Amino acid sequence: MRIKLTLSYDGTNYHGWQVQPDGETIQSTLQKAIEKIVGENSIIASGRTDAGVHAEGQVALVEFNQEIPLWNFQNGLNSLLPKDIAVINVEEASEQFHPRFSSTLKHYRYTILNSRVRNVFQQKYCWQIPVVLDVDLMNQGAQFLLGKHDFSAFQSSSCCSKDPVKEIFAAQCIQNEEWIFFHIEGSGFLKQMVRTIVGTLVEVGKKKMKPDFIQELVKSRERKKAGKTAPASGLCLVKVLYSKELKLTC
Amino acid sequence: MRIKLTLSYDGTNYHGWQVQPDGETIQSTLQKAIEKIVGENSIIASGRTDAGVHAEGQVALVEFNQEIPLWNFQNGLNSLLPKDIAVINVEEASEQFHPRFSSTLKHYRYTILNSRVRNVFQQKYCWQIPVVLDVDLMNQGAQFLLGKHDFSAFQSSSCCSKDPVKEIFAAQCIQNEEWIFFHIEGSGFLKQMVRTIVGTLVEVGKKKMKPDFIQELVKSRERKKAGKTAPASGLCLVKVLYSKELKLTC
Repeated sequence: MRIKLTLSYDGTNYHGWQVQPDGETIQSTLQKAIEKIVGENSIIASGRTDAGVHAEGQVALVEFNQEIPLWNFQNGLNSLLPKDIAVINVEEASEQFHPRFSSTLKHYRYTILNSRVRNVFQQKYCWQIPVVLDVDLMNQGAQFLLGKHDFSAFQSSSCCSKDPVKEIFAAQCIQNEEWIFFHIEGSGFLKQMVRTIVGTLVEVGKKKMKPDFIQELVKSRERKKAGKTAPASGLCLVKVLYSKELKLTC
Repeated sequence: MRIKLTLSYDGTNYHGWQVQPDGETIQSTLQKAIEKIVGENSIIASGRTDAGVHAEGQVALVEFNQEIPLWNFQNGLNSLLPKDIAVINVEEASEQFHPRFSSTLKHYRYTILNSRVRNVFQQKYCWQIPVVLDVDLMNQGAQFLLGKHDFSAFQSSSCCSKDPVKEIFAAQCIQNEEWIFFHIEGSGFLKQMVRTIVGTLVEVGKKKMKPDFIQELVKSRERKKAGKTAPASGLCLVKVLYSKELKLTC
């Protein structure tokens, strides 16, 4: 069977998605649970999430050699998985479906708590910044990300993608009282790209960089000019779309 | 100095508000932190919260014999307190102010996740119920709580209040997709009263009790007729008001 899984996870206690020699990962935990139900299996995700990053709608393809009703598979998996991982949807996948190459859009949300007082309920899911950020300036800066660009300037220095050109469909900060939610939708993202964009936009929000510096930065393709990488805790993979139509959700 | 503190806490890891011979409580943790700043002190809260219950706006009065700028006191306290307790506001309290007796309204919220799949981010802050609840019936039942009644039927069997008569100003379930938020506002609440009300309303939502059974139950004053006590994790003390005007916030 080929099953498309939609997963939600609190990444706090995991070393990211990808199987690692040391430490628990989302993929290894999932693989072990699936093994208990249907034996040997292979899993591919829409993309890796880094250590500490969360997901509301990660998509993965799992393949194995048994037949099992989808409902039983989901329920069995949810009862075997730890409480910080949940399978929120299961459906049979076509032969053509590939979780990474078939995807047309990924939506990430980065949460900033712009307050001098912490929020005891959301501390694992945000970046607390005590100095006031100018969200209008951040949004002016974010507009320079739109379109197709070489995003090497926002790529982790530990990684070199063969294809640093990505298309950004939407990028916007939405403020709700002391919360700032940065939503970004694109064809795909480089390693630590969203977190480096957020780190840089925060510099713009603090008026340490001008909004149009983002444009200059994209053109430069130099990582060292960008801001610091924002903490993993604030980042969440919201949705992966597979429709040919691009439905902007933010 | 007499200071009115507004506190937010994740109650998961505490044995409730009140100092206990064994185990950490919110009050003992707070008292130790205040002691480091201004020495000996006394604390009284608007009311006790049970083990595992959360607060967004608990109010407490703290008294000590030193003078300290409010801003310094709040910042110092927040840096000494563990991450799951935060002081969200401080102000000087008048001689007349008493956190319990001066309060005119308390607002609690109980969160139910009405879904067969867990939510990995909110599991510590809700009660997951996999069978579909009829929220209209629950709201019909909740209306019988309004007004001044003897609420002995909803009181913890381990407790006997001298004054089981309380006034309920508002009681309503608000549904948002798979979430059900039960808001209740009243002059005061008995031990485990909100959780027993929720446990009983859930029986109504499951159609195991009729909505007007709530009226009968209130009249009976018999705890054994009510539903089970809902888990502490779903309960949050949202706000305590001290105005003479009753401002309904739900």
